[in-house]
Amino acid sequence: MMTKTALIAGQGALPAILARALARNGTDHLVAEMEGFPCGIRAPEPVRFRIERLVPFLDHLADHGVERVVMAGAIRRPRVEAELVDPRTATLLPRLIGAFGKGDDALLREVIGIFEDWGLTVVGADAIAPELVPPAGVLVGQPSDADARDVERAAELVSGLGRLDVGQGAVVAQGLCLGLESLPGTDAMLRFVAAEAADLRPDPNGARGVLFKAPKPGQDRRIDLPTIGPETVRGAARAGLAGIAWEAGGVILLQREDVERLATEAGLFLWSWAP
Amino acid sequence: MMTKTALIAGQGALPAILARALARNGTDHLVAEMEGFPCGIRAPEPVRFRIERLVPFLDHLADHGVERVVMAGAIRRPRVEAELVDPRTATLLPRLIGAFGKGDDALLREVIGIFEDWGLTVVGADAIAPELVPPAGVLVGQPSDADARDVERAAELVSGLGRLDVGQGAVVAQGLCLGLESLPGTDAMLRFVAAEAADLRPDPNGARGVLFKAPKPGQDRRIDLPTIGPETVRGAARAGLAGIAWEAGGVILLQREDVERLATEAGLFLWSWAP
Repeated sequence: MMTKTALIAGQGALPAILARALARNGTDHLVAEMEGFPCGIRAPEPVRFRIERLVPFLDHLADHGVERVVMAGAIRRPRVEAELVDPRTATLLPRLIGAFGKGDDALLREVIGIFEDWGLTVVGADAIAPELVPPAGVLVGQPSDADARDVERAAELVSGLGRLDVGQGAVVAQGLCLGLESLPGTDAMLRFVAAEAADLRPDPNGARGVLFKAPKPGQDRRIDLPTIGPETVRGAARAGLAGIAWEAGGVILLQREDVERLATEAGLFLWSWAP
Repeated sequence: MMTKTALIAGQGALPAILARALARNGTDHLVAEMEGFPCGIRAPEPVRFRIERLVPFLDHLADHGVERVVMAGAIRRPRVEAELVDPRTATLLPRLIGAFGKGDDALLREVIGIFEDWGLTVVGADAIAPELVPPAGVLVGQPSDADARDVERAAELVSGLGRLDVGQGAVVAQGLCLGLESLPGTDAMLRFVAAEAADLRPDPNGARGVLFKAPKPGQDRRIDLPTIGPETVRGAARAGLAGIAWEAGGVILLQREDVERLATEAGLFLWSWAP
């Protein structure tokens, strides 16, 4: 018998993609969204929940036979309104509020821990739609040896950034770092490289550089993986890069057909990279 | 008796400032510039040297009684033209070329080592003009407790970036990293924050954020310290920041009077920070 799945849907493109995959696979499932963060999915109609009433929501999942949970999409940190907290959720608040101060990773680990304490299995998007997380290999184009060296240097930088709990991306060309990702995100970094770094490659005929993305070292890979989508390819092309690489197994590729077509048209390589 | 000083002058504002300080102090000195990198100083007329003829240049310094050397200003890595190398400099090339591949820090350390092997004392800009490197303390304005927390987080990030051998600056507001310095430099990072991060501060009435600069951990402080000048203040103001802080003793403040006046006018604090 198939287990029932709950899709906890935040914002962005990923939740709808997973909802379609669940429907296509005929997986028995429900969708839930946090009050104030509409996910845009309407079939099935989402169950709404509030952080202040997390325990009644977990009971609701159990009552409906849910055994497996996938969390996808962005949720900005909700305000917790004290007067709405039910007594059983109140006992969890110290755990959540303690994690609030420690950054997103700690908070997400705590949320996963609570779901697991309720007997639910938390899985990543790749368990629902494996095609979103391509295994190692070049998908499009042909990276040169110089590109491969730039990917290695960028991977080292992204790993260092991750340990600082900042961004999940970097741009490197000819061994030089042209951009580092911070709060404004990947698309903003690519606009920066396009605007500020066009003339900084020492050899104008040399390697044009790569965008590299990876999760933070030690990050729970079931949640909040970095994504690459059509806008990433457009941004990388505008920044004059040779291609996009990412840590194999650690990045979600959204709208893969569009991404591959756009990369081919722009002459960019796409490389699911393993060290 | 006063020792004779050689100012090895690269490009940018700092060499001329040091030349004026040397003249003002009545220090017996000469100026040297690398062929192809004019420093703009004309009194005294600079001695020209080439990397390929480094040993004859070192002899020239000794012949003129030079005992102390200060290096200031930017020099892009020169090409080494093999046919111009004199036999004695040729014996040094393995040392220099080995360091070429290891990054700017390694190369500068090697150059300092060669000057020291020739019996010269290499000093930092602060030995010539101590007012360029202010000791710890707030110079302008009054940072809040929230600003102090942002400075601490930014200092942690810049230290991490330095270990990766990337940039020497970061912008943090309300604990969040809005920008990280890479090859395009501080002014480019501030344009990025102005363009991409204006709406990303979670509390619109909270701390507006700080620019922090520091040398790389382990960097030789006699050379290549990060600088702050009037353009840094203008950029920080345009990025909507509350102030500028830097590691006390590790940053050169160019045109200090202008910098302090501009910061006062823009309502920014200036903080020579010690942990």
